[in-house]
Amino acid sequence: MVSPLHAAPTVLHGVHCGEVGLRHGLITLERMGLSTDLYELTMAQAFLEAGIADRTATFDLSIRSLPHTRGYLVTAGLEQALAYLRDFRCWPEALDYLERSGHFKPEFIDFLGSLRFTGSVDAVPEGTVYFPPGPLLRITAPIIEAQIIETYLLTTITYQTMIASKAARVVDAADGRAVIDFSPRRDHGPQAGLLAARAAYVGGCIGTSNVLANERFGIPIYGTMAHSFVMFHRDEEEAFRKFAASYPGDPTLLIDTFDTIEGARIAARVAADLPEGRKLAAVRIDSGDLLTLSGAVREVLDAGGCHDTQVLASGDLDEYKIEGLLREGAALDGFGVGTQLGTSGDSPSLSSTYKLVACDDADGRETPVIKLSAAKISLPGRKQIWRDYDADGQPAGDTVALADEQRDGTPLLEPCMRDGALVASMPELGEIRERARAQRVGLPDEIRRLSEPAQYPVANSQKLDDLIAQLRHR
Amino acid sequence: MVSPLHAAPTVLHGVHCGEVGLRHGLITLERMGLSTDLYELTMAQAFLEAGIADRTATFDLSIRSLPHTRGYLVTAGLEQALAYLRDFRCWPEALDYLERSGHFKPEFIDFLGSLRFTGSVDAVPEGTVYFPPGPLLRITAPIIEAQIIETYLLTTITYQTMIASKAARVVDAADGRAVIDFSPRRDHGPQAGLLAARAAYVGGCIGTSNVLANERFGIPIYGTMAHSFVMFHRDEEEAFRKFAASYPGDPTLLIDTFDTIEGARIAARVAADLPEGRKLAAVRIDSGDLLTLSGAVREVLDAGGCHDTQVLASGDLDEYKIEGLLREGAALDGFGVGTQLGTSGDSPSLSSTYKLVACDDADGRETPVIKLSAAKISLPGRKQIWRDYDADGQPAGDTVALADEQRDGTPLLEPCMRDGALVASMPELGEIRERARAQRVGLPDEIRRLSEPAQYPVANSQKLDDLIAQLRHR
Repeated sequence: MVSPLHAAPTVLHGVHCGEVGLRHGLITLERMGLSTDLYELTMAQAFLEAGIADRTATFDLSIRSLPHTRGYLVTAGLEQALAYLRDFRCWPEALDYLERSGHFKPEFIDFLGSLRFTGSVDAVPEGTVYFPPGPLLRITAPIIEAQIIETYLLTTITYQTMIASKAARVVDAADGRAVIDFSPRRDHGPQAGLLAARAAYVGGCIGTSNVLANERFGIPIYGTMAHSFVMFHRDEEEAFRKFAASYPGDPTLLIDTFDTIEGARIAARVAADLPEGRKLAAVRIDSGDLLTLSGAVREVLDAGGCHDTQVLASGDLDEYKIEGLLREGAALDGFGVGTQLGTSGDSPSLSSTYKLVACDDADGRETPVIKLSAAKISLPGRKQIWRDYDADGQPAGDTVALADEQRDGTPLLEPCMRDGALVASMPELGEIRERARAQRVGLPDEIRRLSEPAQYPVANSQKLDDLIAQLRHR
Repeated sequence: MVSPLHAAPTVLHGVHCGEVGLRHGLITLERMGLSTDLYELTMAQAFLEAGIADRTATFDLSIRSLPHTRGYLVTAGLEQALAYLRDFRCWPEALDYLERSGHFKPEFIDFLGSLRFTGSVDAVPEGTVYFPPGPLLRITAPIIEAQIIETYLLTTITYQTMIASKAARVVDAADGRAVIDFSPRRDHGPQAGLLAARAAYVGGCIGTSNVLANERFGIPIYGTMAHSFVMFHRDEEEAFRKFAASYPGDPTLLIDTFDTIEGARIAARVAADLPEGRKLAAVRIDSGDLLTLSGAVREVLDAGGCHDTQVLASGDLDEYKIEGLLREGAALDGFGVGTQLGTSGDSPSLSSTYKLVACDDADGRETPVIKLSAAKISLPGRKQIWRDYDADGQPAGDTVALADEQRDGTPLLEPCMRDGALVASMPELGEIRERARAQRVGLPDEIRRLSEPAQYPVANSQKLDDLIAQLRHR
């Protein structure tokens, strides 16, 4: 028998699914404040009633550990996290809803109406190579603010970091060849597609098929054609000619709708008839034995004079398949990677956490706190991550230290917000992508390898270990 | 060397990431039309230029095959797909962007400005038990409309169907106990969290922690408390008392912040002091050996007179862990399931496709078409899925037939839109959920089992097989 864990709240909106009532399921700015777990709101109300809503707390947003196939992660999503914090508020629509729910007291709803994020954020910049479990973000704010933002920050940072990290692996496997994000149709909803395009670009893809990602973020977009386009025409040649005539640039033709080699021959014929100044950019193969086909297609293209035409592969690719194809000598110049990239197929989640690490006591003194329950020990106190480099400039180890320690090396967390306002100018997306590239290629090979990567050394500072011992003892 | 596959289009928006420029990455109604793959637009332009934009085409949205751990799928997401089709248009913001891109001709942009979806949709209703590879949706519309909607339809239907299907397994494993979606923080972005809550409810969860899912869809919401709430107070008892005093209903207390058994004792003490008419709804255990702890906690609660207080588990659970815990006799009454539910962790994608199956020839006669390339054969023509039932009312097999065949059994696809307008009143979400439940429990056990499920029989009708043979021969 199904027993509710507590009485279900009144269902506020019957779902009126006549024509008027069909719901899109979009997140709008006005309802962003409701995109949260219920407990964030009930805890906030409890903090307010207990008169401790203003007491300062510090939370770490961290990743607990690497998925077992990952040697490193690439951070992404900070821009969206900061945009959320900058614009955080409960709009009248949201307040009305909370009031109608009957579960929140008028004083709390009034309080929410004027609530803004007034705290501090320090964060590891986007495009940084990161190793758990140090903090990716550190938030210091009145407890009620710091708590209520948890859900949105976690989903925003975790997803993009996961996808940027996956993209870095795929790009590494492609060994200098182009990788394009083809994932929008298989990502976890339309917004996931938009965020995946951004994160994939940070991770090293040259662009995406997602038009909105160009409009929103300026990410280069690429496109080819679908099998349906070929099938809708009398034959492949007519389809190719019509497409080439209309295409706003050098076209890429999809050649595997019927017979890939024959498709390549037709593509070469169409290329030969292109007007002066235009060329066949690429052909795409989406099925079959990509190793054999790519070599045969290359020969057909070369024989037809299409030496500059690239051969692009797609069709459920990932870093493992791409590495295998290239190791065997596939004549491929680029890859459209969809499902496995945009869902991080072999590891579709990260063990992200948002933990209280310090709070003011009744006298306003900041006090580090620790959670000691089984196998999930948190790192107490405000912290910084320091990275050491060896003589060749390669990262040689990270130390998670207390924030007030002075150490050698490079501190990873940088100030982003103070008193709720941005204090750093945010880098352009291209700059973030270049940082990720430079840091990735600077990693030791054994950390970058796709399978069974070596473990990068991350240690606590002596002072942090002393603090942990002291808090455990207590 | 990275070589673009075709010249990257001008980057339209430099990303101005000063305070003003921080971008949220939300999908708004005004920009929904740009949430698509570039090739949908370039193909559309080619159709228009070729003068065949109005020619009618039929596409199937299908799932190619079941993930190997799944015996069946539960359909979801149709409401959002239909809302998209109903409201499809390119708003001035989107048209301005496309114009500035320089890649589309003025006539095409004008055409897009007045483009609406004017076609027909037949679909398997939400909450239906579905077996690949028959059509989930069948779209008949002028080719340019039918093509351009591909990306959004695929991501919308695929994600929710995947999550509803995962939820059904988790709910089955819980064997009558409550399952709540706790996934918002680990889903693939905020919108994924909202859609996951909806799909999880369709699949049988009793509700979600996602507040927005209550506001948008009327889904019951549940919440407990976070470790940070306990850690922020002087001790567990103070935290529990403050929380219980403020909570708008019977509270659930999280008891594993320090020592789970001691936490249960404190919770029972706090319960004993609750005012008349209120009780401790549940305690939640989020870590440790859930089998041993749940039994010990149950004893503590019973000894303290909390016989009605439920024991809820959370912490990286999935259907396999839940089944194992219950088989061993864990004293658990409900489960909060997050990451693995909202990402469909063991199978985070479905092999969904959107294939042209028929199109009008130059004389306006509908002609079935087929794609024959390696290992990816499409089913040609307008089709219907017919379900047979055995004497006990259990589904006994599906037949994928041509739409004009009359057969025994129950047809699964129902008319949804004609001439771009809804023609069926959409069911309430509760009705969809009940349909999914009834169909799920009506399945043979061997189809429902969590590992190595038996294969449900799906066959083509003789007429469909004849058509395939005829088209292959041609």
